[in-house]
Amino acid sequence: MMEDTIAAIATPLGEGGIAIVRVSGREAVDIVEKVFRPVPGGKRLKDRGGYTLGLGWIVDRKGNHVDEVLVTVMRGPKSYTAEDVVEINCHGGVLAAIRCLETVLENGARLAEPGEFTKRAFLNGRLDISQAEAVIDIIRAKTEKGMSMAVKQLEGMLRKRVAELEDRLVGLNTMVEASIDFPEEVGDLDEEIARQQAQEILRELEGLLRAGERNRVYQWGVKVVIAGKPNVGKSSLLNALLRKKKAIVTDIPGTTRDIVEDYINVKGIPVNIMDTAGIRETGDLVERIGVERSEEVISEADIILAVLDAGAGISEEDERVAKMVAGRRVIVLVNKEDLEEKRVTLEEVERLFPGQTVVRGSVKEEIGLEELESAIEEAVLAGKVEAGDEDIMVNLRQEEAFRRVKTSMEGFLAGLETNTSLDCLAVDIGEALEALGEITGKTLKEDVIERIFRDYCIGK
Amino acid sequence: MMEDTIAAIATPLGEGGIAIVRVSGREAVDIVEKVFRPVPGGKRLKDRGGYTLGLGWIVDRKGNHVDEVLVTVMRGPKSYTAEDVVEINCHGGVLAAIRCLETVLENGARLAEPGEFTKRAFLNGRLDISQAEAVIDIIRAKTEKGMSMAVKQLEGMLRKRVAELEDRLVGLNTMVEASIDFPEEVGDLDEEIARQQAQEILRELEGLLRAGERNRVYQWGVKVVIAGKPNVGKSSLLNALLRKKKAIVTDIPGTTRDIVEDYINVKGIPVNIMDTAGIRETGDLVERIGVERSEEVISEADIILAVLDAGAGISEEDERVAKMVAGRRVIVLVNKEDLEEKRVTLEEVERLFPGQTVVRGSVKEEIGLEELESAIEEAVLAGKVEAGDEDIMVNLRQEEAFRRVKTSMEGFLAGLETNTSLDCLAVDIGEALEALGEITGKTLKEDVIERIFRDYCIGK
Repeated sequence: MMEDTIAAIATPLGEGGIAIVRVSGREAVDIVEKVFRPVPGGKRLKDRGGYTLGLGWIVDRKGNHVDEVLVTVMRGPKSYTAEDVVEINCHGGVLAAIRCLETVLENGARLAEPGEFTKRAFLNGRLDISQAEAVIDIIRAKTEKGMSMAVKQLEGMLRKRVAELEDRLVGLNTMVEASIDFPEEVGDLDEEIARQQAQEILRELEGLLRAGERNRVYQWGVKVVIAGKPNVGKSSLLNALLRKKKAIVTDIPGTTRDIVEDYINVKGIPVNIMDTAGIRETGDLVERIGVERSEEVISEADIILAVLDAGAGISEEDERVAKMVAGRRVIVLVNKEDLEEKRVTLEEVERLFPGQTVVRGSVKEEIGLEELESAIEEAVLAGKVEAGDEDIMVNLRQEEAFRRVKTSMEGFLAGLETNTSLDCLAVDIGEALEALGEITGKTLKEDVIERIFRDYCIGK
Repeated sequence: MMEDTIAAIATPLGEGGIAIVRVSGREAVDIVEKVFRPVPGGKRLKDRGGYTLGLGWIVDRKGNHVDEVLVTVMRGPKSYTAEDVVEINCHGGVLAAIRCLETVLENGARLAEPGEFTKRAFLNGRLDISQAEAVIDIIRAKTEKGMSMAVKQLEGMLRKRVAELEDRLVGLNTMVEASIDFPEEVGDLDEEIARQQAQEILRELEGLLRAGERNRVYQWGVKVVIAGKPNVGKSSLLNALLRKKKAIVTDIPGTTRDIVEDYINVKGIPVNIMDTAGIRETGDLVERIGVERSEEVISEADIILAVLDAGAGISEEDERVAKMVAGRRVIVLVNKEDLEEKRVTLEEVERLFPGQTVVRGSVKEEIGLEELESAIEEAVLAGKVEAGDEDIMVNLRQEEAFRRVKTSMEGFLAGLETNTSLDCLAVDIGEALEALGEITGKTLKEDVIERIFRDYCIGK
């Protein structure tokens, strides 16, 4: 248990019905007791059982009522942090929560740092680090699929897989160490078995790395930029995709803007979609800056939606767009296909955007939008093999550690081939175990832990 | 108890540690039971005592875990709405809360309308309407003083005063009715006693109206606009006031911007302070639009801070500013008083802004800012008598009802003077009681109730 008691507002700041001030640590109950007046006949906090709520008031030093509250007591280790936790449910709105927090801080609690509650849960052994990292992924999830992966991570999906890998490594290590320590009794290392085991571990690692790379897009999303000459229907396309998808994500009034922001949900992948200024040569300074900005945005995109106008035909400006996106991942939308007169042939499109996916449709008539989304999904997942580990998440920090495990195992295999000493083989396995421990937090250094939690919001 | 069960996210939407989905109504426990899986060994909701929490998971139709949650059961009438209430504490972040809400909605709850939980608390008799209105005032409070007044309202401060007034009116009514119904036994109305009682009621009403008018500024604040010719230090003044006050309101990292917005806290009064474009004649179209916008903003201000430059002397542009704000509530700041050469005399200021408060100082050196704030407080409270009822709040709806009570009582007194019939006097008292009932909600019409709660946020 940590020494001091920490407190923070655990709900987002803003207008709402309820806000929560969370207090955790050895003195959590004592500190809140000082500022809590239960309703007549209500129990004092220290006389309350764990996991019960009491109604009352938070009072300041002068005895004035700060707010009417519900207070929950959760005694460690059965709490989020595994310490004593008191949660004060006060009225929503920023000021009520701040006043309650201030009152608690005045009575001996310290303002919690970002992620400090979750960090304590980790340091007290309630969560491993991959689960602690899942907490922030849940909070930041942008699509249901991303959220469900994060929830599985919180349940310990990666933790379990790492434990299995660890068992195998320990088994291999035992074999090697036995041959080192008791050569008489055990005999030489059975290289064939060792090789097989190491190869199995490598296959497992490669599977995890593939699944991780594939599934990270569900958490992080991709940036898709719409490009094209003026008046081909770029903004209408953006609106059509946004309107359609906003309605799918949620129809709860008032939430839409907050959730979707610039994101649309394409088959579970959060897509940050951006419109750009029409690309053309121009003398107007302001417009030229717009076009320059477009080029910049295009250069940062994962995928470019290049829009052509079926009615207008290919112009010099389209050639310019094609040149700009050459060599990138492009999906071409030939728009306004509903017009009678069509002046854009597939041959022309293939010449401009060789080898790229082409969708023909009409934004206005909502033709081809489904196809466009499938094309986006395909482009995002292109080259990422369908992984067996459907829902496992591997973040960049974990990936880096897995790669080091992999390198060590490759070293081990190479060592076997070249008849290196048993001691060297043992070092490889030791390094692999060390790197593996970083994924669950067993062998993490203090500064890495700091860095992981620095990214959290206050109150988590 | 209302027929259907309602649900909504009760915390603000955004990134945070915890979000709450609140469910209220006859089937609240049954509905959440369907989607809640307690941790192994945990109790089912229907077997839980009131005011206890259970740890577990919300699961969707396919049995997938939606989120890890803490669920609280509060059985009516001991709950916010006086109905059965279940609160689901899930992970913060928008999607976790929405997914939990969706799961509850899929199982028979209806999405709550804005303010519907508080409306049920009112309709079920747990709060009167003045207390229900205080809830939204607490959520929207911008200064501690405004918040503390709203908390007192929630405790029933106005409810109590209205009950006292009602007692007096009922007493008066009894006197009049007795003389009507039993003239033989009771005799004529004692006009002197009736007059005294009516006058006491009137004095009480006037006190409440005065206090209400005075105290509304603590809830609603005032709009203060900074005006002056270019380069007199308007923006520096804004920054100086904002910086200073932001630090006082809170030093909790990350909250400052959300709270203060454009508001500063001047002695408990939320002041919406605005900078304007410098006022001058100009040929530049864009600048002219800026000046026109300044004039518009100035015309809507409660108080204008007119800034002069002590070093530059009075110019035609200052004369123009003076003309623009003539007849308004103005505080003059003679800025740059730290300069050695001063070219603005008090006589000149008096000629330009006759009878207005003048503060001399230097924004750069932070001289005179305290004095300026005192001047703002004085200007806001000017003419509003120091009320005995320090902290009572009367909103415009309540004020309008109080005024009708007052009119009826004045009618009653006039009736006494002109020897009107007892029946007419009884009608006056009846009208007064009717109007008084609107303040606590006893006699409110359905559409007025709708209008009151329409202003609430969802989830309250």
